[in-house]
Amino acid sequence: MKPIGSSSHFTLHATSGTARRGTLHLAHGDVQTPTFMPVGTAATVKGLTPTDLREIQSQIILSNTYHLWLRPGIEIISQAGGLHRFMAWNGPILTDSGGFQVFSLEGRRRLDDDGVTFQSHLDGSLHRFTPENVIAFEEAIGVDIAMVLDVCVKLPSSQEELANAVRLTTHWARRAAQARTSKATAVFGIVQGGLDGFLREQSAEKLIALDFPGYAIGGLSVGESREEMEMTARFTASLLPEDKPRYIMGIGTARDIITAVDCGVDMFDCVYPTRCGRNGRAMTHDGEFAIKNATYTTDYGPLDPKCDCAVCTTYTRAYLSHLFRAGEMLGPRLLSYHNVYLLNDLMRRAREAIEANEWTSFRDSL
Amino acid sequence: MKPIGSSSHFTLHATSGTARRGTLHLAHGDVQTPTFMPVGTAATVKGLTPTDLREIQSQIILSNTYHLWLRPGIEIISQAGGLHRFMAWNGPILTDSGGFQVFSLEGRRRLDDDGVTFQSHLDGSLHRFTPENVIAFEEAIGVDIAMVLDVCVKLPSSQEELANAVRLTTHWARRAAQARTSKATAVFGIVQGGLDGFLREQSAEKLIALDFPGYAIGGLSVGESREEMEMTARFTASLLPEDKPRYIMGIGTARDIITAVDCGVDMFDCVYPTRCGRNGRAMTHDGEFAIKNATYTTDYGPLDPKCDCAVCTTYTRAYLSHLFRAGEMLGPRLLSYHNVYLLNDLMRRAREAIEANEWTSFRDSL
Repeated sequence: MKPIGSSSHFTLHATSGTARRGTLHLAHGDVQTPTFMPVGTAATVKGLTPTDLREIQSQIILSNTYHLWLRPGIEIISQAGGLHRFMAWNGPILTDSGGFQVFSLEGRRRLDDDGVTFQSHLDGSLHRFTPENVIAFEEAIGVDIAMVLDVCVKLPSSQEELANAVRLTTHWARRAAQARTSKATAVFGIVQGGLDGFLREQSAEKLIALDFPGYAIGGLSVGESREEMEMTARFTASLLPEDKPRYIMGIGTARDIITAVDCGVDMFDCVYPTRCGRNGRAMTHDGEFAIKNATYTTDYGPLDPKCDCAVCTTYTRAYLSHLFRAGEMLGPRLLSYHNVYLLNDLMRRAREAIEANEWTSFRDSL
Repeated sequence: MKPIGSSSHFTLHATSGTARRGTLHLAHGDVQTPTFMPVGTAATVKGLTPTDLREIQSQIILSNTYHLWLRPGIEIISQAGGLHRFMAWNGPILTDSGGFQVFSLEGRRRLDDDGVTFQSHLDGSLHRFTPENVIAFEEAIGVDIAMVLDVCVKLPSSQEELANAVRLTTHWARRAAQARTSKATAVFGIVQGGLDGFLREQSAEKLIALDFPGYAIGGLSVGESREEMEMTARFTASLLPEDKPRYIMGIGTARDIITAVDCGVDMFDCVYPTRCGRNGRAMTHDGEFAIKNATYTTDYGPLDPKCDCAVCTTYTRAYLSHLFRAGEMLGPRLLSYHNVYLLNDLMRRAREAIEANEWTSFRDSL
């Protein structure tokens, strides 16, 4: 494919409708987009090994700065030779900045213009994030993509709160950009602004001036309606440079991801498939269901007849239902494996559809 | 190797000292002995897939009649096409008879000469095991080796209780032998008698007259000392036919298994390695330890430097310690994988030592 746009860490190969087909160029390898990133909060995608992740065609995973900061902490990961070696995953890793988690700690964090002080949910100990020390942390553990520290607010919020979040996010993004020291770690900016088009525009404009190698759309999936989410994602994506990758944070049902691809976004993450997997919720080509339901105890068909993953080609719904009913740990493992594969495979099919310039019909066929 | 003894389901290839090297011939394949059988109580070796079990060189697994009977029950397993297809394990399976579990249900079971009535630990429902319906269950789910229903007593017990257990076990073994209908399932007898040599002799003699294709030594690892266990195992093994396989039930630390091999026993099972794995207890060539201990949080060496399993060649103690400290389900999975491999590999080395007629020096080197 002849590229239609490129920058230091991204090549845009093709568009189809409003969807994009690209390649991320990262220190630990290339990533074909659109791509789903499973979440490995505590340096492990829950229940799955790196070998499993390769098998199910995960190209890049996400881990959480907030959680890694608190446990096991920077010293242990650094001494291990970085996060990749610590968790034995040699593919690309993106870390969020911890902003989302810290701002969820209602009553246990204090924001000032310089940073945010918060109490650990584990032991109540006090910690402080600044734009600089978050970048230093992410660089020290050697991730491929580091998100800047942002101020994330719940929706609905007052205009004043939203505007202040954008102001600080912009200010902090500039400090984060100046704090960079490693070429191996690409630092992405995060556009905030809630559902306010003017604030989104303002936020995007200031971040674009800082010339980040990629941009995230933050502050969504935090209480707004599906329509509001889509409208804001579409509008914000349209503000971003065509030749840079676009990442929408925390979006993870199959339906929402397809919508986000249609908005012109390239990267997605969510705990949804692994959380569903642990709770016995199967994601399939024909919708979701709880595997423990009585109807599945004698269903000897595959979990998802349209899926070719190792779980669907090996086990029956009856067996998986039994595992969950008996509280067996193999159940969460197998269902997490399948659910993540399902999203990865959906992304593979999306990439093929965009390459063939058949995105709209593919999207409508789902 | 030229066999030095053989019967319908077993070939004895060699002995070295008092240890034996053989092959079990079963419906789902051959098994090289001495062999360790990991326990898959509820149709799953906790946390491990059949693919994992193959990788760690498990040849045969054990499952529990008591648990399978209660959940998912005979209909679901039969309709799945048997236990092998239900759990997607195509190697040999041995099921215990449920005797051990039922007799552990103090106050919730009533023994009579015909069988035993018991209350489910799950829902309090009443069930009844007889020698006949246990064999029928094991044949229906299609296992390779079915244990007869026996009467298992705790130690210490009165002479009267022990004698009665032997009397009923013998009586029930005869009825079980008569109840057999399937050539695919080999039914093994179980020698009881506590620590009493006379009762063990009596039990073995009567069972041998029934010409089972294999014999188990039951009623050990139920409260006696290590020395008592060894003495009784050695004495009982000496009573059994040389050309039939010998299985000691519920023995599973590395040290106890080596002792049992030295007693001339061929097959072993225990929940020990998987239970330890779930609880963060690592079994290694140099002893056992709790991976959560502070000393391992910064130990970047392999779990067991002398082990070549995928866990030991991929992860560090520091990472595994982190997984357990963070309550991550990958920890139990990985430690179970390693612990079972360790015992399987110990058995492989034992087989090689016996073949080379170097058993005694191998045993003493451990």
